[in-house]
Amino acid sequence: MDTAYVIDTLFALFSITLIILMVPGFAMLEAGLVRTKNVSSVLTVNVMIYAVASMAFILVGFHLAFGDFQSTTMSQWAFFMFQMAFVGKAINIMSGGVGERARLLPLTLFTVIMGALIYPTAVNISWGSDWIKDTIFDLNFVDLAGSTVIHSTGGWALLAAILVIGSRKGRYVGNQIRVIPASNIPLVVLGAMLLWIGWFGFNGGSVGGISTKELADSVALTVFNTNTAGLAGAISVGVLIYIRYKLFDITMILNGALGGLVAITAGPHLYTTFDAITIGAIGGALVVLAVPLFDRFRIDDPVGALSVHLVNGIWGTLAVGIFAADYANGITFLNQLKGVGVMAVFVFSVSFSIIYLLNKVIPFRASDEDQVQGLDVSECGLEAYPEFKRAI
Amino acid sequence: MDTAYVIDTLFALFSITLIILMVPGFAMLEAGLVRTKNVSSVLTVNVMIYAVASMAFILVGFHLAFGDFQSTTMSQWAFFMFQMAFVGKAINIMSGGVGERARLLPLTLFTVIMGALIYPTAVNISWGSDWIKDTIFDLNFVDLAGSTVIHSTGGWALLAAILVIGSRKGRYVGNQIRVIPASNIPLVVLGAMLLWIGWFGFNGGSVGGISTKELADSVALTVFNTNTAGLAGAISVGVLIYIRYKLFDITMILNGALGGLVAITAGPHLYTTFDAITIGAIGGALVVLAVPLFDRFRIDDPVGALSVHLVNGIWGTLAVGIFAADYANGITFLNQLKGVGVMAVFVFSVSFSIIYLLNKVIPFRASDEDQVQGLDVSECGLEAYPEFKRAI
Amino acid sequence: MDTAYVIDTLFALFSITLIILMVPGFAMLEAGLVRTKNVSSVLTVNVMIYAVASMAFILVGFHLAFGDFQSTTMSQWAFFMFQMAFVGKAINIMSGGVGERARLLPLTLFTVIMGALIYPTAVNISWGSDWIKDTIFDLNFVDLAGSTVIHSTGGWALLAAILVIGSRKGRYVGNQIRVIPASNIPLVVLGAMLLWIGWFGFNGGSVGGISTKELADSVALTVFNTNTAGLAGAISVGVLIYIRYKLFDITMILNGALGGLVAITAGPHLYTTFDAITIGAIGGALVVLAVPLFDRFRIDDPVGALSVHLVNGIWGTLAVGIFAADYANGITFLNQLKGVGVMAVFVFSVSFSIIYLLNKVIPFRASDEDQVQGLDVSECGLEAYPEFKRAI
Repeated sequence: MDTAYVIDTLFALFSITLIILMVPGFAMLEAGLVRTKNVSSVLTVNVMIYAVASMAFILVGFHLAFGDFQSTTMSQWAFFMFQMAFVGKAINIMSGGVGERARLLPLTLFTVIMGALIYPTAVNISWGSDWIKDTIFDLNFVDLAGSTVIHSTGGWALLAAILVIGSRKGRYVGNQIRVIPASNIPLVVLGAMLLWIGWFGFNGGSVGGISTKELADSVALTVFNTNTAGLAGAISVGVLIYIRYKLFDITMILNGALGGLVAITAGPHLYTTFDAITIGAIGGALVVLAVPLFDRFRIDDPVGALSVHLVNGIWGTLAVGIFAADYANGITFLNQLKGVGVMAVFVFSVSFSIIYLLNKVIPFRASDEDQVQGLDVSECGLEAYPEFKRAI
Repeated sequence: MDTAYVIDTLFALFSITLIILMVPGFAMLEAGLVRTKNVSSVLTVNVMIYAVASMAFILVGFHLAFGDFQSTTMSQWAFFMFQMAFVGKAINIMSGGVGERARLLPLTLFTVIMGALIYPTAVNISWGSDWIKDTIFDLNFVDLAGSTVIHSTGGWALLAAILVIGSRKGRYVGNQIRVIPASNIPLVVLGAMLLWIGWFGFNGGSVGGISTKELADSVALTVFNTNTAGLAGAISVGVLIYIRYKLFDITMILNGALGGLVAITAGPHLYTTFDAITIGAIGGALVVLAVPLFDRFRIDDPVGALSVHLVNGIWGTLAVGIFAADYANGITFLNQLKGVGVMAVFVFSVSFSIIYLLNKVIPFRASDEDQVQGLDVSECGLEAYPEFKRAI
Repeated sequence: MDTAYVIDTLFALFSITLIILMVPGFAMLEAGLVRTKNVSSVLTVNVMIYAVASMAFILVGFHLAFGDFQSTTMSQWAFFMFQMAFVGKAINIMSGGVGERARLLPLTLFTVIMGALIYPTAVNISWGSDWIKDTIFDLNFVDLAGSTVIHSTGGWALLAAILVIGSRKGRYVGNQIRVIPASNIPLVVLGAMLLWIGWFGFNGGSVGGISTKELADSVALTVFNTNTAGLAGAISVGVLIYIRYKLFDITMILNGALGGLVAITAGPHLYTTFDAITIGAIGGALVVLAVPLFDRFRIDDPVGALSVHLVNGIWGTLAVGIFAADYANGITFLNQLKGVGVMAVFVFSVSFSIIYLLNKVIPFRASDEDQVQGLDVSECGLEAYPEFKRAI
C-alpha cells in the first residue's frame, strides 16, 4: 500500500540524515582528540572516507552485498542510500585509530578496497542476500545494526592496520607510555554527541520500517534502548573514574557512552530497560579496562577506537545470546559467538593481507620528521589553526 | 488506527532527536561563554546532566510525573523518551548559571534529586496525570512546552543555587563589576543555533501529535511562531544595542533570540504572526534590561540564564493570558499568574532547601585557588585547549 | 485526504529543519575560513541575515513571491516557513564573499531589501505564481531547488557587491596575490558538512511532497543524487589537486563537494546516478578552475563563494538542458540558458544599483585601520578568541 511505502521512505530518509550526521560527528571527535599539528590531516581523512567509501559502495559494493535485491517496502533509492550511509562508518573506526602517523594516499586506496570489497562481503555474509551468504556461509546470528558487522569489522581492520603501521613516534619510549592529551575538548564533546544522536538513525533505521504498529513500537523501543545504553555507559565510566581518580575525565566518560552505544547495537529491539542499562554499563566499564590494556601491548590507538568499537562490538554481539537468547528461533550464545568468530577471522585476515601488501608498494607510515612536524604540513599543506600560538 | 499511531510515533522520534540536539547546543553555548580554564568542566557538567538526569527520570521520575499513564496514540517508548528528553533541559539551565565556580560532584547529586523528584513533581502539578495534580493542586494554566515548567523551573533552581554558592571570585570587587568576555564566539553561535533548531522539536512535539489535519496545522503554526519569536528577539536586541552602543554584540543578540524562544514557548499554538513578533521582541528587550539588573544585585550568572530563562519564562507564561485569553476555556491572566506563582514558590523553596542542605555536606563552591587556576584542572584533570597559548 | 496532508506537512517540517541547519553551517564554514580578527563579525552577519531576511520575507517578501497562494497539500504554515527558510541562503552566499571588509549596518540594510524585494521577485519570475510571472516574464526553465534562483542569485548579488566594495586591504599588492590561510579548519569541515546534510532538505523538500509512491521515489532519488554529486565533487577536486600539488587541501575538497551540490540542485529528480556523478565531478573541477581565475581579475572572495555558487549555479542550470533535455515538455538547453540569462541580468543590475546607491549613503567598506585591526573590534566590540594568543 502507498501509505506504508511513503512512511517507510520518509523514515529511511530521516534515518539516513542522522547517520550522515555521524560524518561530522567522527570528524569533530577525532579532530578534538589528536594534537593540533595533525588536525587537518585527520579531518581530511574523515571527509575523503565519506566520499570515497560511499562512491565505491555505490559503484561496486552494493551489488556485492545485496545482489539484485529490490526493496518493495520503500523507495529503492532510500534503501540504497541507507546502506551506503553505513559503509563509511566502519572505515572511520579504522582511520581514527591510525591517526597521527598514517598517510592519506594509502589510506584512501585502502578505503576504496574496503568500501568496494571487504565491507560488502562482510555484509553479504551477515545481512545480505547474495551468493556468498547462500552458498558458503549462512551465519545465523542476530546483529541488528552492526555491533559486529560495522563496529567489530572496523575494529579488526584497525587492529590489522596498527600491526602493520606501528605506533606513533615517541608514544612508547623504553618502559614509558607518553600520555598525549586531547587538543580541543569542545570538539570532542560535539563530535561524541553528534555520533550519539546519529545512532538513533543507525539503530532505529535498521529495524527496516516503521509503518505498522508493531514496527513503530520496535523502532521506538530500539531508539529508547540505544539511548539508555549510552546513558548507562557514561554513568558507569563516570562513577568508576571518580572512585579511582577523584576526577571527571570527560574524554573517558564520552568513550564510555560510545562503548555503551556500540554494545547495545546488536539487539536494541530485544531488550528490557534493565538489560539496556546492564549492557551499556558493562560496555562503559570495558572501555575503562581496555584502554590501558591495549597500551600495555603497545597497540597505539589515539582515539580509543579499539576499546570502544572492537571490544564492545564483540561484547554487544555476545550480549544478545545472554540477554535475549531464544532457542526456538536459534538465538543462542554459540550462534552469536560463531558470528563474532567468523567475521573476526574473515575481516582481520583479509584486511591484514591487503594492508600488508599495499604497505609494500605505498608505505602507510609517515616519516619520523613528518610526524614530528605534524601531518598537516606534509599531507595537506595547511595547518588547522595557523593563527593560534602553540603552547607546547 | 495504525497509520495515526505510526505517524505520531515517527513525529515523536523526530521531535526527540531535535530536543537531544539541544544537549550539544547547551554544551557549546556554555563552553563558548566561559573562560578557557573552565571549559572542560562546563562541558562535563552538560554531559553528566544529560546522562544522570535522564537515568533518574527513567528509573524514578517518569512514574512520579505521569503515574501509570499509557499512551494510546503513539508508542509508549516514544512518549517515555520524549518526556525524558525534557528533564535535562531544566537542569542545564541551572548548571550554566553556576558555571566557573560550582563543583561537579554536588552538582551531579543535585541533578539526581532534581531529575528524580523536583522536576517530575513540577510536571505532575502542571502537565501530569497523577495523585498530586488531582488531589492537591490543579493548576489550570496554559504552558504548552514549558515557559514555566521547564524554563522558569530551571531559572528558580538556578537562583536558589546562586544564592547558596555565591558569585565567581573576582567578579564583584568593591563597586566594580568585572566584565569577563566569552572565550570562543563560534561555539556560542553554534550552540545557540542548535538550541534554536532543537526548539522546533521541543515546541512542535509538545502539541502531542500530527496525525490529523487539525494537529498538522497546529504543529506547523507552533514551529512557525516559535521561529518567528526567535527572529524577533534577535532583531529587537540588535536594534536596541546598536542604538545604544553602535556595536553588534553577537552574544547579546543570541541571548535575545533565546529569550524570544523561551517567551513563545507557553503558547506558540495560539498566536498570530504579529503576536509572535511582539512576544519575541519584548522577550529580547527583557534580556537587555535584565542582564545589568541581575549584576546590580550581584547575582552572578556567567551565561545570562536567569535573563533568558527565568525572566522570559515568566513573561511567556503571562503573555498567554494577554494575547490568547479565552474566558470560556479558563485561559486568563490570573490563571497564568497563579501558575507562575505556585511553581515559583514550589521550585524555589524546595531547590533552595535541598541545595542549602547538600551544601553543608558537600560544598558546591570551588576554592578560590581552584577558581583562579580554573576548574578544569581541579575537577577534570585535563585542560580544554592544552596546546593553545593563553593571551590572558 | 488527511493522511497525505499530514505526511507532507511532516515532511516539510523535516526539510525545514535541515535547511535551517544550514544557518550554523554557513556560519561555521565562514568563521573557519576568515582570519580570527574577523570571526565575530562574520558570525554576526550570518545570524543577522537569518533574522532580518526571514522577517522581511515573512512581512513583505512572501506575498510578493507567491501572492495569495494557499497550499492545499500541506499546512500553509509549513509551506510559508519552507519558503522563508530559503531566503537567507541566497543572502548568506553574498555575505560570505564580502567578508573581512564589509560593514554590518549597510549589509543589514541590503539584507532587508534583498529579503523583501529582490529575492522574492526572482522567485516570482521563476517559481512563483503572481502577476510578474504571469504578465511579464514566464521563464520556462527547470530549476528544482535553485541552482539559479538561490545560488546564482546570491552569486550575482555578491559579484555586484564586490565590484562596489573592492578587495580586502593587502590582498592584492602590485602583482602579488597574498594567500590568506583559513584560521580554523575544524569549523570549515563542520560547516561544510552541515551544509551538505542541509542540502538533503533543500533539494528533497523542493519536490514539494512525499505522500504518493511517485513522490516518495522522486524525493529519495533527489536526495540520493544530491549526495552523489557532492561525493563526486569532493573526489574530483581531491584527485585534481593531488595530481597537481601532491597534497590534500581540505578547504578545496570541501568547496568541490559544495560545488557539486550546487550543480545538481537544478535537476536532482531527473538524473541517473552517472549523470549525477558527471555533473558533480565537473562542478568540483569548475571550482578548481574558477578560484584562481577570479583572483586573476582581482575579484576578492575570501570563501570562494563565486566559484561554488555562481559558477556552479550556472553550470547546474545548463546541465538540465544537457542531461535531461525533454523537447516534448520544453526542457531545452536554450530555455535553461534563457533562465540563467534573464535572472543574471535582473539580479545583477538591481543588486548593483541598490548597493551602489546605498554605498553612497552608508559606506559598505570598513576603513583600512579597521581592516588591519579586524572588524570584530570595530563592528562588534568583542573578539572571537580573546584568551588565545595570536601567532600571526
